[in-house]
Amino acid sequence: MSYNAPLKDMLFVMNELANLQAVSALPGCEDATAETAEAVLEENAKFVSGVIAPLNHPGDKEPSFWHDGQVTTSKGFKEAFRQFAEAGWQGLQHPQEFGGQGLPKLVGTPCVEMLQGANMSYGLVALLSDGAIEALLTAGSDEQKATYLEPLVTGKWTGTMNLTEPQAGSDLAAVRTRAVPQGDGTYKIFGTKIFITWGEHDMTENIVHLVLARTPDAPAGVKGISLFIVPKFLVNADGSLGERNDAHCVSIEHKLGIKASPTAVLQFGDNGGAIGTLVGEENRGLEYMFIMMNAARFGVGIQGIGLAERAYQQAVAFAKDRVQSRDLAGSAGPVSIIHHPDVRRMLMSMRAQTEAARALAYVGAGFSDIAHYHPDADERAAHMAIYEYLVPVIKGWSTEMSENVTRDGVQVHGGMGFIEETGAAQHYRDAKILPIYEGTTAIQANDLVGRKTVRDGGKVAQHLIAQVRATATQLGELAGAEHGEHFAAIRAQLEQGASDLEAVVAFVLANVKSDVKAVFAGSVPYLKLAGIVLGGWQMGRAAIAAQKKLAEGAGDASFYQAKIVTARFFADHILTQSAGLKSAIVDGHAGVLALAEDQF
Amino acid sequence: MSYNAPLKDMLFVMNELANLQAVSALPGCEDATAETAEAVLEENAKFVSGVIAPLNHPGDKEPSFWHDGQVTTSKGFKEAFRQFAEAGWQGLQHPQEFGGQGLPKLVGTPCVEMLQGANMSYGLVALLSDGAIEALLTAGSDEQKATYLEPLVTGKWTGTMNLTEPQAGSDLAAVRTRAVPQGDGTYKIFGTKIFITWGEHDMTENIVHLVLARTPDAPAGVKGISLFIVPKFLVNADGSLGERNDAHCVSIEHKLGIKASPTAVLQFGDNGGAIGTLVGEENRGLEYMFIMMNAARFGVGIQGIGLAERAYQQAVAFAKDRVQSRDLAGSAGPVSIIHHPDVRRMLMSMRAQTEAARALAYVGAGFSDIAHYHPDADERAAHMAIYEYLVPVIKGWSTEMSENVTRDGVQVHGGMGFIEETGAAQHYRDAKILPIYEGTTAIQANDLVGRKTVRDGGKVAQHLIAQVRATATQLGELAGAEHGEHFAAIRAQLEQGASDLEAVVAFVLANVKSDVKAVFAGSVPYLKLAGIVLGGWQMGRAAIAAQKKLAEGAGDASFYQAKIVTARFFADHILTQSAGLKSAIVDGHAGVLALAEDQF
Repeated sequence: MSYNAPLKDMLFVMNELANLQAVSALPGCEDATAETAEAVLEENAKFVSGVIAPLNHPGDKEPSFWHDGQVTTSKGFKEAFRQFAEAGWQGLQHPQEFGGQGLPKLVGTPCVEMLQGANMSYGLVALLSDGAIEALLTAGSDEQKATYLEPLVTGKWTGTMNLTEPQAGSDLAAVRTRAVPQGDGTYKIFGTKIFITWGEHDMTENIVHLVLARTPDAPAGVKGISLFIVPKFLVNADGSLGERNDAHCVSIEHKLGIKASPTAVLQFGDNGGAIGTLVGEENRGLEYMFIMMNAARFGVGIQGIGLAERAYQQAVAFAKDRVQSRDLAGSAGPVSIIHHPDVRRMLMSMRAQTEAARALAYVGAGFSDIAHYHPDADERAAHMAIYEYLVPVIKGWSTEMSENVTRDGVQVHGGMGFIEETGAAQHYRDAKILPIYEGTTAIQANDLVGRKTVRDGGKVAQHLIAQVRATATQLGELAGAEHGEHFAAIRAQLEQGASDLEAVVAFVLANVKSDVKAVFAGSVPYLKLAGIVLGGWQMGRAAIAAQKKLAEGAGDASFYQAKIVTARFFADHILTQSAGLKSAIVDGHAGVLALAEDQF
Repeated sequence: MSYNAPLKDMLFVMNELANLQAVSALPGCEDATAETAEAVLEENAKFVSGVIAPLNHPGDKEPSFWHDGQVTTSKGFKEAFRQFAEAGWQGLQHPQEFGGQGLPKLVGTPCVEMLQGANMSYGLVALLSDGAIEALLTAGSDEQKATYLEPLVTGKWTGTMNLTEPQAGSDLAAVRTRAVPQGDGTYKIFGTKIFITWGEHDMTENIVHLVLARTPDAPAGVKGISLFIVPKFLVNADGSLGERNDAHCVSIEHKLGIKASPTAVLQFGDNGGAIGTLVGEENRGLEYMFIMMNAARFGVGIQGIGLAERAYQQAVAFAKDRVQSRDLAGSAGPVSIIHHPDVRRMLMSMRAQTEAARALAYVGAGFSDIAHYHPDADERAAHMAIYEYLVPVIKGWSTEMSENVTRDGVQVHGGMGFIEETGAAQHYRDAKILPIYEGTTAIQANDLVGRKTVRDGGKVAQHLIAQVRATATQLGELAGAEHGEHFAAIRAQLEQGASDLEAVVAFVLANVKSDVKAVFAGSVPYLKLAGIVLGGWQMGRAAIAAQKKLAEGAGDASFYQAKIVTARFFADHILTQSAGLKSAIVDGHAGVLALAEDQF
């Protein structure tokens, strides 16, 4: 059950598909050369494989536990977090002025993937801290930044996001937690927050809770929500810890997966009020939270990719090792099960989907870097728009993909997969949270339809479809080359996918005003279709890049050949789902919506 | 977390689709009138809902446990099994001469579905006993029948199937357990069997193990396997219990799901040899086991349907209860989430797949009854061939379906679904064993390709495809009727599905000799395609029957309207996957098979 970072594929995607060279040419990204990136990834791989990955299965078997308000984390986690912090990994993507390394997202993303692949429960604490840092960088006052950022960036403290309440899950308009101004610039916070990931633990001396709450005269709904910093321990002017704040963990959840990560119920203000300070302006909390959520949503998509990669590696190792039945084409004795066609099909499916999702996410990270660092405002805006279109796709599709891949991971193991000691089942259980937290797939799909497709009249979507078609054309030009039959097949499916996606975007735009429910009945299929087509686009680009390398005779021919075959598999087995998804969206709303509630 | 047997749908399927009337006209099935069937189903529903279902979640939380060779079952199981046995439910489908009720499979199947839906862990012990009874009826001597059948049929004892060994999972050729003849008609059995469901427990005074083993001079491979009865306690001539046999449970597994059902490692013969008697003839064990396995495979398919139904009911209840966010079409305040289109889409998908799988399985049960009871040998043979084609489809497709449905069941619950107390996660965990045990989906698919398609040159497959087309034609005739647009849509997708399935059968037949691996690379997609098309066929028939009832003004109009809408949903969202599956099979083998082992 070891984890080996897929460095070769990561570097291939960064260099050949996500244009690391262009990113490292941006002002502020000069350090991110191909050489540096490779060195950072190698170092990170060594660390997560050696220190973090071995804690994954033991943490599942002996989860973090709660006693009397305290959470004791799974064995080894505290020490591992100390090493993680000391090596500077928490600060990889954060500004140097607060103790970070200031590397672009394109270099940070593979490191996030490795951490999450090694140990999702563990990786979550870093992901949540990243979100808190992002929010404070965006909207924190200078004083707040000075107080909280360096401890968060250096991993001295960790951060949390406190959104959900029992009655307010996907619907943050229903948040009830109160924030009462004390006249001294502070507020007293009262309320209950649930599902707070790493909301309490023993790994660091302080925890910085970012909390959504309402001030007394705030308007109803989402326009009346403000964001507050509520530290577990108050912080003195010199940065030392002061009194224990009135924010207490009253229980943690008994969950299907990610068991080592404590999911807390936090009670604010039961003993007089938890002291908090306002972040930014009153009633703009949701806006700030969205910035942090976009980063977190992208991060959750990466979790899906990391987890899928780990499940794939484990299934491959088992399939090479387990001997059972003869080869269908004839063999003297039984062979390892990787020789059986259906095992092969499952492994290829796991591999192809993971690689496609990785490529799409890293390309997204590259766009995000251009959106942040490019000197030209129009370039920034254009790339931001594309990145924002991709975020719900990366989050929604990569996580749904991880469910399929971890499922196949168990299936490859047969009966052994159902036994917890084997470890494959943990991935299947862990994966199930990914399409739920940080906005369910339906919430992502609503975002994709509403904010990302309808709002700009489909402009970004059509721009991307045109790019997919351009790649299909390039693939067509290789139909006469070596492996030409693969390129022709990929081209055909990619063109079909582009047409299906185009038809769906047109359907969304044409009907969203006249029949909003019909459109949203197809929102998740639309998200999946976008994932498949855009993932297929990246696999097409990958096949072209691999062919070019083969023609040049450079590098690892076996890797490039495998990339072409994997792209071919993706085209035949995954992209071929596009026409069915299109029909389900364009024709399928009648069946979704026709029953009355009492007919269920 | 209650379970309500879907009696209305069950009776509709039995009467309108599976032709209960024709079955009850068969000699030996006269008792199975529509009235009797309804009464039996109602009584069974009352029993499983009241006694068995409430044990499901507690049994998951506090699984059966092993100590010093003994297994203590989850609280309440022993008493519930006593009531189950006393009420005669174990014997429902078994011969009256051994204490059963001798009802046809078509009446027994809904009762199996209810039991499994109520509590899969519990239901397994009954399923395994059914298998043992089946094997003894087929191949047992008169003496064996006299000794073992009545206690098994009346639930005084339970039965097990002992196939798997550490090195022999899917590949039974690798079985090593030895059976040494003692010269007195008995054998001594030596070996280790793993994954023995309900292999040890405290619910009955004896357990009848059916064990695959090799006699000293048996040929290698599957042709040298014999079947033995090895009871936990030897049985005296008068039926009383004798000595404890040398068959001991050395441990039980720690599993992803079905935790209340003990999965035993059984050690035979560590203290001198376990005494067993041969069933039937030497070296024909696998043949007998296959009879029992066919029954068990069908039963596992039914488990998938029962579990899917339960997950659906739980998701519907939550979706009606949970209030979150406003209605997309506008509402004063937040609404229950069943109003949100994507929740609706998931519920419809769960419902449509469950109903389709149920209809296909019950129709299969009806064919099985004709195959057993029809006076005409040709009729029996023709229906047996169809039933045998359907078994791997019912097993493979219904169980893969149950994974999708239980996944959506968790997803509908959002964050609450990930919390074990909610109960949705248990179904997701329980489901994962279904496509694995009694032959993985790949094993079912191999059977579908090899024994069920290639062996008869596709005859049965083509016969079924013709029936699908006939239904499509009938649907076309209703295109002008009320709900005509639904019928037209179902017709179109069903015709497409029939063509896709036909193309795949032709591909299989044309290539199985020249490129066996290419064909088997598509075996699981073929199985899924067959499930979708044949399930869609049943939904099309159901829609026609419902329309007829509506036109007659008979019965529950709301139920019939819902059936038509559900069939429409199935056509648009599930049947539309058929073209993609066809491409994956016909074109997709290149990508499956091209990598070398070291490229993984």
